[in-house]
Amino acid sequence: MKIRLFERDEIEKVIRLDTGLVEKMEEAFTSLVENQAQMPPIMRIDVPEYNGEVDIKSAYIKGQDSFAVKLSSGFFDNPSLGLPSANGMMILINSQTGEPLSILADQGLLTDLRTAAAGAVAAKYGSREDSKTAGIIGTGSQARLQLEALMLVRPIEHVMVYGRNKGKAEDFKAEMEEKFDIEIRIFPTISEIVEQSDIVVTTTPSKEPLIYGEWLREGLHITAMGSDAEHKQELDSTVLEKADRIVCDVRAQSIRLGELRSTPEMEGHTVELGEVTSKQVSFRHSNSDITVCDLTGTGVQDTAVARHVYALLLAKEGV
Amino acid sequence: MKIRLFERDEIEKVIRLDTGLVEKMEEAFTSLVENQAQMPPIMRIDVPEYNGEVDIKSAYIKGQDSFAVKLSSGFFDNPSLGLPSANGMMILINSQTGEPLSILADQGLLTDLRTAAAGAVAAKYGSREDSKTAGIIGTGSQARLQLEALMLVRPIEHVMVYGRNKGKAEDFKAEMEEKFDIEIRIFPTISEIVEQSDIVVTTTPSKEPLIYGEWLREGLHITAMGSDAEHKQELDSTVLEKADRIVCDVRAQSIRLGELRSTPEMEGHTVELGEVTSKQVSFRHSNSDITVCDLTGTGVQDTAVARHVYALLLAKEGV
Repeated sequence: MKIRLFERDEIEKVIRLDTGLVEKMEEAFTSLVENQAQMPPIMRIDVPEYNGEVDIKSAYIKGQDSFAVKLSSGFFDNPSLGLPSANGMMILINSQTGEPLSILADQGLLTDLRTAAAGAVAAKYGSREDSKTAGIIGTGSQARLQLEALMLVRPIEHVMVYGRNKGKAEDFKAEMEEKFDIEIRIFPTISEIVEQSDIVVTTTPSKEPLIYGEWLREGLHITAMGSDAEHKQELDSTVLEKADRIVCDVRAQSIRLGELRSTPEMEGHTVELGEVTSKQVSFRHSNSDITVCDLTGTGVQDTAVARHVYALLLAKEGV
Repeated sequence: MKIRLFERDEIEKVIRLDTGLVEKMEEAFTSLVENQAQMPPIMRIDVPEYNGEVDIKSAYIKGQDSFAVKLSSGFFDNPSLGLPSANGMMILINSQTGEPLSILADQGLLTDLRTAAAGAVAAKYGSREDSKTAGIIGTGSQARLQLEALMLVRPIEHVMVYGRNKGKAEDFKAEMEEKFDIEIRIFPTISEIVEQSDIVVTTTPSKEPLIYGEWLREGLHITAMGSDAEHKQELDSTVLEKADRIVCDVRAQSIRLGELRSTPEMEGHTVELGEVTSKQVSFRHSNSDITVCDLTGTGVQDTAVARHVYALLLAKEGV
């Protein structure tokens, strides 16, 4: 059986960041806590000479006829070569026979979309339902997609953005104002954004904390998706200590690669996102809660988005 | 840049099990002990409902412009569906940029070849140079390829084979006699084979020991390649205890998945194959030594064979 290879442009034509994808993410997180998923630890190959790494994630979810192996690369000297740092692809495998079904040569697009969709899940359960003001920290592709994701689940009317590079912040503002017909204000400091937001999303590769506990006000929700490696951190310990509720996608990953790494004493106070999506526990209890969600990225999300896209691609062909 | 997808038939046209491939394996093992390789632990996804698993192996070797990620599946109910249990593919990645270069949809062929080539390395350094009689335990594709590999490095004139299935043993005999113009004798017991061989290669998925120490005679070399998972074993502890020299491809893998698992006290007496290929230590010291080599399969071999095949495929196109 020949493997079907789909290029990025074909994938772009069928996939949307929409509530359907957000639901697929909820089901994926639920499968983790209901012991329906076989999800091994992340595999990483380092390429020190080129300031790069390849991460491999996967998960088989019981009863599903296919599952994905996702390769995701980050080569941080690439921009000097005129190339994006991030790349990637997904391989879809037949669960019954182990035969490879398809290669989705998405160049990282699907990882971006499933990460943003997880941000929507976090906001859907974590943030106040009347959240109108979003603060985006960072100005890259995740900053754009996380904003788009928020707008799927909350009535966002005002957006504040911070980026280290003024030009990129202005690009973000121009693009997002046009795309969403919404007001974007660029701020020179993160503290001002945090103090005025209902929802803050951090989307940076920062190695040092960007947000401090003393800036947090009642009712705030923060989603931190930047930290996915041992040296990264976006939230100071004081943020986790002040939060009324901390949720992470996978505790073991958050402890090793995410925000829990710097504040491990909060591990016992943390629940996993699947416990929330499966309705075992709630995330936000009251409008005054301060809530934090740490996203590190999981193989179950990769399998969910790969299966979703493959079905859409076959549907397009009339299969 | 579009990913190049090569199918099995294209790969079969260019790749040979030859001394060139054996040399590539030696270089691969050497890179491991010279700290030139980034080789993470094997990733495994279990699919219990279908009696299957997918193993992922990889390694980046310093200075090489590409490296492989290898997916290898074993789904043991497949024969009842008329399919082979084993499947697989390799993804070749640009070391400088992280971009995927090529998919080698080899269906496991390259893993088979690089495993046999490692068997040739083991025999080249481990067995007596005048080895003429080979004993093959098992009658599958590895049994065939391991015999072919031995014949690259030793003057094999007589072959004995054992298999649990008489029909398969007869198929093996017929095919190998025709292919190599050599005498193959089928034996009903393993002990007789071990007692009369210069080299024995075990190639089975056995969960119980097949070879016992009391059968071993001076000068014998054994290569055990079957055990690559926690429940598998081909050599009884008495074999490792009696051996004058034990070599494994990677100690950590042999301890966890290979023959050292059942006799961990021998770990301190074991050297890695790369120490032998890099000429740091010798394998066989004298014609009377009893030598054992445990092969579990490594990402450096996958990268070596993938790069080798990709170069051959491009050469065929006149690139």
